[in-house]
Amino acid sequence: MLSKNRLRFIISLQKKKIRDEQNLFIIEGDKLVKEFLCSDMKVLSLIAKPEFIGSLPKDILNSIRTVEPASYEELKQISSLKTPHNALALVQMQVTETKPVKILKELCVALDFIQDPGNLGTIIRAASWFGIENIVCSNDCVDVYNPKVVQASMGAILNVKVHYFDLKEFLATASAKGKPVYGAMLEGNSIYEQNPGNKGVILLGNESKGISDDLLPFVTSRIMIPKFSVAKHGIDSLNVGMAASVIFSEFRRRSG
Amino acid sequence: MLSKNRLRFIISLQKKKIRDEQNLFIIEGDKLVKEFLCSDMKVLSLIAKPEFIGSLPKDILNSIRTVEPASYEELKQISSLKTPHNALALVQMQVTETKPVKILKELCVALDFIQDPGNLGTIIRAASWFGIENIVCSNDCVDVYNPKVVQASMGAILNVKVHYFDLKEFLATASAKGKPVYGAMLEGNSIYEQNPGNKGVILLGNESKGISDDLLPFVTSRIMIPKFSVAKHGIDSLNVGMAASVIFSEFRRRSG
Repeated sequence: MLSKNRLRFIISLQKKKIRDEQNLFIIEGDKLVKEFLCSDMKVLSLIAKPEFIGSLPKDILNSIRTVEPASYEELKQISSLKTPHNALALVQMQVTETKPVKILKELCVALDFIQDPGNLGTIIRAASWFGIENIVCSNDCVDVYNPKVVQASMGAILNVKVHYFDLKEFLATASAKGKPVYGAMLEGNSIYEQNPGNKGVILLGNESKGISDDLLPFVTSRIMIPKFSVAKHGIDSLNVGMAASVIFSEFRRRSG
Repeated sequence: MLSKNRLRFIISLQKKKIRDEQNLFIIEGDKLVKEFLCSDMKVLSLIAKPEFIGSLPKDILNSIRTVEPASYEELKQISSLKTPHNALALVQMQVTETKPVKILKELCVALDFIQDPGNLGTIIRAASWFGIENIVCSNDCVDVYNPKVVQASMGAILNVKVHYFDLKEFLATASAKGKPVYGAMLEGNSIYEQNPGNKGVILLGNESKGISDDLLPFVTSRIMIPKFSVAKHGIDSLNVGMAASVIFSEFRRRSG
């Protein structure tokens, strides 16, 4: 049984401020927890149903600092999901500092004020599939260690590095280095008719406001995904996760 | 204030059996409710915060059979989301019967045992963007009127028709009519190197099991999205919603 204090502590990690102070984040889900246990990341605590704990090999269990059996009710209290999984773990954050010039050596993604955790998670997942190793987030993007981001990334945060930079400065560096910046926007040119290279920055904007005005001067090509809509109601949209998948695919199709 | 019975009734609509009996489904969210109120669909009941109700034009309010002001706590009880929106509505199902041969006149999508409501919603959304008017679901797919499907479709169910058929019979009809069936599978041929037409069926399989064995004989082309992964952990995947976006884009790019 988990103490009230312990439950309260784990719940408090849903807040970015506490995560940063503790240098810890939460992962949820049987598969995700197992992926992390097999990775280089440090899993400090495992909070899980006894059956889940029992299913793990001994050497893996020994590598975890605290293993805490929990009931469904306890997992429900600490979960960020409506229906909790069988396992949840606390993982140590890894600080990786990579210089902008290094990131700019390969195709990378820049995100301007992405707010929805599911969207950031999906973008990380798509980046991993399409071989994009670095994502640069503006400082006001949702936190990559938000439990819902981690959840939606399905473990792809193990493969993709997510950095938080002043985006204006980052794009200025790209510009100084002569790297193209592809800005996704509704009034762009069809991505099918562009000839994107395998270098540069793919810039995706906020879910409702798009790319900020002060970043537009850095955009060297405006790109969009053509709509073939059957809509009667003008409600058609792709979310930024779906758009990212299509755009990354288009870049890799011709340069891969 | 909503009566206990009323609350219980609305919650019961989260079950497919009750939805089918009552011929009603739930939509949630300020924007979605507004979209539906402007569509041909019949919104029978609006359950919302007084502020939301107050923001609607009179003629729209008059078109709704019952308008029920509700508190945050009441909305939280009836919502399928952890954090409820300001508005929820009960909408009459529309029965549209379209014959398979008619559906097969244009490019369409067939879904084999898609279980996750978010995935079905995203596929509907992608279909609407890329101008695919009909989706044929196997009878064991998640129900299109599941609140989470409606939510994830972001209103695109207003534009795309979703049918439930025996998929084997449907694909047999496609085959008899000489229509190609493009099956998405990991061991397929790169979709970039295919020459898909603007007719036929795009077949997407279950999230973990893929396309059922008994449907494979109908597949005329096996397609897959190449992976350019940077993965160290072999965890890379695209969910079926992201894959659908990329595949639909590839079909439309060359035939649009």
